[in-house]
Amino acid sequence: MKLLEERIRKDGIVRAGNVLKVDSFLNHQMDIELINEMGKEFKRLFADEQIDRILTVEASGIGIACIVAQYFGVPVVFAKKSQTKNIDGDVYSSKVESFTHGRIYDVMVSKKYIHEGDRVLLIDDFLANGCALLGLLEICEEAKAHVVGAGICVEKGFQQGGDLIRERGIHLESLAIVDAMDSQTGAITFREQ
Amino acid sequence: MKLLEERIRKDGIVRAGNVLKVDSFLNHQMDIELINEMGKEFKRLFADEQIDRILTVEASGIGIACIVAQYFGVPVVFAKKSQTKNIDGDVYSSKVESFTHGRIYDVMVSKKYIHEGDRVLLIDDFLANGCALLGLLEICEEAKAHVVGAGICVEKGFQQGGDLIRERGIHLESLAIVDAMDSQTGAITFREQ
Repeated sequence: MKLLEERIRKDGIVRAGNVLKVDSFLNHQMDIELINEMGKEFKRLFADEQIDRILTVEASGIGIACIVAQYFGVPVVFAKKSQTKNIDGDVYSSKVESFTHGRIYDVMVSKKYIHEGDRVLLIDDFLANGCALLGLLEICEEAKAHVVGAGICVEKGFQQGGDLIRERGIHLESLAIVDAMDSQTGAITFREQ
Repeated sequence: MKLLEERIRKDGIVRAGNVLKVDSFLNHQMDIELINEMGKEFKRLFADEQIDRILTVEASGIGIACIVAQYFGVPVVFAKKSQTKNIDGDVYSSKVESFTHGRIYDVMVSKKYIHEGDRVLLIDDFLANGCALLGLLEICEEAKAHVVGAGICVEKGFQQGGDLIRERGIHLESLAIVDAMDSQTGAITFREQ
């Protein structure tokens, strides 16, 4: 998606350690107009699919999923990262290692909000090592829900997540795929799509 | 807001310990149509205000803030609950005690995304003891930003948060205020507004 690639080039910041900061428009401050354009693009890319709900994981996926959901007319369910008083015992859960936070945590979804046979679209802001998405896939498998596809804003093409997801036969659409980036020069190379 | 009150009566679940579960439509599974109606209502309630950005706190505030922001045409900034690789050192921060999680955590916003003189609308799903909102107020004070008001989906009117915020002269709008609830019968009493 050219609009997103241009925005990443303009406002993304490349840091040592393969960190791409897009927090000025995507995951700390959020440009709602841009995210609406991404919602339209996901709708175009998954136009032929019947979708019952969108599943994401807290925190930065939630806002994007909510905007995107408007184009599909479906509810959003977000996986939670810790057990709270507000989740009852009956949950599907999976362990996820966060690249950003450098730790392992549990993600969980109440069994009330994913059901057998549900057609689920996964949405997240980033795909790097793939752990978050694999965690959501595991939750859907447990629930016997059908994952229609996964929509990602920014994929780091030089990390393994994209390959892991595609190898499983999941219809993965990443709006921008970064194949290389250089923290010295700030240069970012996008994959042709 | 009648639509929200009706939904809380229909799908909200009252639990012992003053817990009101609305996770079937507001903060685990999210009914995007309902949240759009709430966005329109916040726009009506804050129609006369010039607003530069919406500030909320992760996680469950984010999706609501993003939908609401569409009616104001402004970006969303969400305060983060832990230091990550993706936040640089220069942040405004505040300590918040969570009623839901039963613990104290830091919330922080990069200094790049709130500025002196910004006119900020605070949005959150719940107002109970008021700690989250007070934390956001403290961040805005640090930044010398002007808090135009606070828009809350569900206020627990029998806890102190609403009074604490109103005593400070903040324009607080809660779409539903629960004045009493009974975990034995499930009865919920809303404040007349």
